[in-house]
Amino acid sequence: MNDIDIETIKGIANQLRIHSIAATTAAGSGHPTSCCSAADLVAALFFGHMRYLPKDPHYYNNDRFILSKGHAAPLLYAAWAETGLFPAEELLKLRQLGSDLEGHPTPRLSFVDVATGSLGQGLSVGVGMALCARLDHLDYRTYVLMGDGECAEGSVWEAASLAGILQLNNLIALVDINRLGQSQPTPFGHDIATYRRRFESFGWRTEEIDGHDLDEILEVLAAVGLGTQPLVLLAKTLKGAGISFIQDKEGWHGRALTKEEEARAIAELQPTAKSGVGVPIPPPSQLPEPKIETPASYPPVAYKIGDKVATREAFGNALARIGAVDRRVVALDGDTMNSTYSEKFAQRFPERFTECYIAEQNMVGVATGFAVRGKVPFASTFACFLTRAHDQIRVAGISMANLKFAGSHVGVSIGEDGPSQMGLEDLGMARAVPGSVVFYPCDAVSAEKLVDQMAQHKGITYLRTSRPKTAVIYNNDASFTIGGAGVLRQSANDKVTVVAAGVTVYEALKAADTLQNEGVGITVIDAYCVKPLAKEVIKAAAQKTNNLVITVEDHYPEGGLGDAVAGELSAEGVRVHKLAVFELPHSGKPEELMSKYGIDAAAIVKKAKALI
Amino acid sequence: MNDIDIETIKGIANQLRIHSIAATTAAGSGHPTSCCSAADLVAALFFGHMRYLPKDPHYYNNDRFILSKGHAAPLLYAAWAETGLFPAEELLKLRQLGSDLEGHPTPRLSFVDVATGSLGQGLSVGVGMALCARLDHLDYRTYVLMGDGECAEGSVWEAASLAGILQLNNLIALVDINRLGQSQPTPFGHDIATYRRRFESFGWRTEEIDGHDLDEILEVLAAVGLGTQPLVLLAKTLKGAGISFIQDKEGWHGRALTKEEEARAIAELQPTAKSGVGVPIPPPSQLPEPKIETPASYPPVAYKIGDKVATREAFGNALARIGAVDRRVVALDGDTMNSTYSEKFAQRFPERFTECYIAEQNMVGVATGFAVRGKVPFASTFACFLTRAHDQIRVAGISMANLKFAGSHVGVSIGEDGPSQMGLEDLGMARAVPGSVVFYPCDAVSAEKLVDQMAQHKGITYLRTSRPKTAVIYNNDASFTIGGAGVLRQSANDKVTVVAAGVTVYEALKAADTLQNEGVGITVIDAYCVKPLAKEVIKAAAQKTNNLVITVEDHYPEGGLGDAVAGELSAEGVRVHKLAVFELPHSGKPEELMSKYGIDAAAIVKKAKALI
Repeated sequence: MNDIDIETIKGIANQLRIHSIAATTAAGSGHPTSCCSAADLVAALFFGHMRYLPKDPHYYNNDRFILSKGHAAPLLYAAWAETGLFPAEELLKLRQLGSDLEGHPTPRLSFVDVATGSLGQGLSVGVGMALCARLDHLDYRTYVLMGDGECAEGSVWEAASLAGILQLNNLIALVDINRLGQSQPTPFGHDIATYRRRFESFGWRTEEIDGHDLDEILEVLAAVGLGTQPLVLLAKTLKGAGISFIQDKEGWHGRALTKEEEARAIAELQPTAKSGVGVPIPPPSQLPEPKIETPASYPPVAYKIGDKVATREAFGNALARIGAVDRRVVALDGDTMNSTYSEKFAQRFPERFTECYIAEQNMVGVATGFAVRGKVPFASTFACFLTRAHDQIRVAGISMANLKFAGSHVGVSIGEDGPSQMGLEDLGMARAVPGSVVFYPCDAVSAEKLVDQMAQHKGITYLRTSRPKTAVIYNNDASFTIGGAGVLRQSANDKVTVVAAGVTVYEALKAADTLQNEGVGITVIDAYCVKPLAKEVIKAAAQKTNNLVITVEDHYPEGGLGDAVAGELSAEGVRVHKLAVFELPHSGKPEELMSKYGIDAAAIVKKAKALI
Repeated sequence: MNDIDIETIKGIANQLRIHSIAATTAAGSGHPTSCCSAADLVAALFFGHMRYLPKDPHYYNNDRFILSKGHAAPLLYAAWAETGLFPAEELLKLRQLGSDLEGHPTPRLSFVDVATGSLGQGLSVGVGMALCARLDHLDYRTYVLMGDGECAEGSVWEAASLAGILQLNNLIALVDINRLGQSQPTPFGHDIATYRRRFESFGWRTEEIDGHDLDEILEVLAAVGLGTQPLVLLAKTLKGAGISFIQDKEGWHGRALTKEEEARAIAELQPTAKSGVGVPIPPPSQLPEPKIETPASYPPVAYKIGDKVATREAFGNALARIGAVDRRVVALDGDTMNSTYSEKFAQRFPERFTECYIAEQNMVGVATGFAVRGKVPFASTFACFLTRAHDQIRVAGISMANLKFAGSHVGVSIGEDGPSQMGLEDLGMARAVPGSVVFYPCDAVSAEKLVDQMAQHKGITYLRTSRPKTAVIYNNDASFTIGGAGVLRQSANDKVTVVAAGVTVYEALKAADTLQNEGVGITVIDAYCVKPLAKEVIKAAAQKTNNLVITVEDHYPEGGLGDAVAGELSAEGVRVHKLAVFELPHSGKPEELMSKYGIDAAAIVKKAKALI
């Protein structure tokens, strides 16, 4: 590396600092000092190391960059402006409603793969991308820039562990160790050795560097890909580096400079600042683009009415069935594949299955990495353990990532394992992800066909599966749609509409039989799609039953099916009476629990009679 | 340690194995092999090391034991039966509805402090207990038994890191390294050195032992408390140890033995099995019991109508105000104390404040540890980052722990930071915790007084706070209750009832003014208590406004205020029209965003007019 290049890159780093300061001062908010500490690292990566096409951020074999410390967004935006992708003046619109240069990066921007801003999540996504590169036989590398404070997040260590186990030597982490957190210094300050010992113990190759010495940074980067293990650059830096009156001082996190401070800072940085425009950027290598067809349809299912099959098992069958013809599909699990039945896919397509062990946060992040690289990832575990990854799911929503989740073992119907293993709030969690689709099938046919829908639909989709075996009630050629529902029983003079899903569908049908014998008709609707709700179907049925609806769900009363129906239909005058699990449940047999918690046929009959 | 004692404890370990097998076989489900691998460790702890009063599990200075690998519940139950606390025959009622010996431990049992069963959470609780022992000047030690598979959970490393930083040498972890996970072997098998390097790098003293050699186990335990750092025993074990035809074999996770297998297994174990009854157990030392008065009331607040104060800041003021007189109160934060204002407590009462750094899962677990030791912990961070700890919050609900949460920076009203920092689903998450109370104050007076309520109320309580400054609208002597609401505007002939909370209260009042000028009256209700909802107040108001209600919230439409009102009142014929943030939001100024996402005064006016 000759001197001119180093001086140029140093100069670009200062230009990035200037941009970050100017943008945040113009916005009146933001994190300029967090940008300054990482500016040399980012300049080195973007202008001295990474192989990519600046004019084509989506190019399939570009090196990938994830700004895990998402609050340094202005720095990332500045780097891309300096590649010439867009005019630098745009940077001054940071954080404005009319600009996609938001406070934290989102994939509304072409050069951002995943939303960041909730710390500790980027490395998991990086693991997913690195795995995807292998799967696609591409040689792009994935670079994840983290802060030191964010290394307190356990999700970082979940990702680090898996990367070490899977020997992801195409994954490079950089930790910007500027010793100052948000509210106070980090516990380890500039004791870089502590970080080194930790990453080494998790299977990483480590390099301790001066994060402001471009020679060192570039020298270490030149040796990426050596050996089998992922690499982490542990960079000692100063928060606010380059600004003499701010650097390494407390009280400057998340604080934009005043106009006066901005002028002083820029005066210090301007003399050495250089533009990135025109600096030659190494292109990616010319490996074949993975072209994977999306199948027009999937093979049919073949069940018999009355077959007893758990929807969790049907999920596994479906995953293997579609996986055989749809090579976009990959699967992940958290050491529960024998319970979720993702093992059926894992056994047939091991190269497309990632065991994530007992680490659900990372599993969701890894799935997100696959999704943003164009795969269709299905991540499965017990529904209750998906709450472990709620923040990652939330952020995947901001990323508008094409993720599929299957949560098994829902409700009290799991029985004896007890409440710690029961998903009772997962419908609420899944519904609150913007744009999500939420499925809750009752039988194997609908479960499999909804998996087909999930794979074909672009967006976050959740499938809620049950532990007990349930009877197949749908024909193999029945169709199931996003926003659909199954009207299973309906006759003239029905007195109330019962909306059920999953195991409670069978309870509702039993209740219908009981009431029929007493001369009372009820409408039974299978709400296999909880979001978007089959609003018109339910409303039409309700209007024929005096606007009376009973919802019944193996879920807490908050956030689930009952809230969904009431939330959408009360405005139309529909009166919704909720049956749900109204208290913390206990271990016991499934049937006992469904009775005790008032979601069985007897409870439905009792409620119906009380209302009529 | 003389030979007789070793043989006795070995014998007790085998008795514990027998009990675990018999109980799970009787139940037809459970995890006997996970119990067998840990039986020697548990026998050593309970009958050869821990200092406690078996007849008084709640005694304040007992050593504490947390079974983090909660699926080994039968082993824990067996240990306590062998202390004589209850008859061993009770063990055969494992997992029955009528027995509190549930599938995974819950504090319905006197000898269980916290529910476990969702892996990776016990160490955090142990950190909280160890900190609490220090705070209370007690010398009890806290022992946390984990599995190897569960060490993949990042939360374990969050806890380990904090324990190392805080030098918790009264905390002892034991890892039952039996190499076999649920669906397959763990990645590291019996490579104990990998676990050792990791824990050492996180600041722990480590001891590698044969987990079935009672001499080794007891020898290492005898040296607890040495040095400054927490201690971890890394125990090499065999899953199903003691049963020749099962031990160390795959395919035995979560699988009860058949009657025939049970008989063969017990035949192997019985000859050496010994009872624990009568074995002398070292008592705790006689240190003074921390007796902390619960104050009958808290000092008053002193704001002026019209003062502009953010509810997040009022939270900070309240915490310091009540903390001054209520020594049960402790606080925790995740490197956001300058944003959540918990710093006001931290600065005045540093000995009762725990900085948890950027690790929210652990923060919630640590808070749970304090709660079960009788403190009143307030854990605060941004509301959106509380979703990182959703599983810990869920399990705290199963523990019925007395936890208080404050989530700040809710909704689009935070402005330019953008969606990754906005809490938009937190009301849904908090509502779905069984027995929870959910507060969402609009001004400083109500915020502070609701904090008073939180501290006095037994159970999980959540306070949702906002970033912007809002005007004080309540008098200092106004009262706020669980299940209450404020009727802010009401007159005869009101046309619609608007239910708002937080920042939207001010929008509703502005809308009321606008409509008033046009001769239209609306009722405005401040739903400062979202759960339990002020159902009767809202219903009564609605009935006077033709059953028409508009809810308006700075939250997604799913799971929040609108769903709460519709979910409870649609059955009564109330028609609820929801205003909420119906799409993924963008960065921008708070006022711009509230307008764009239809939750400002103009949107309320428009909706009201459309309905009337």
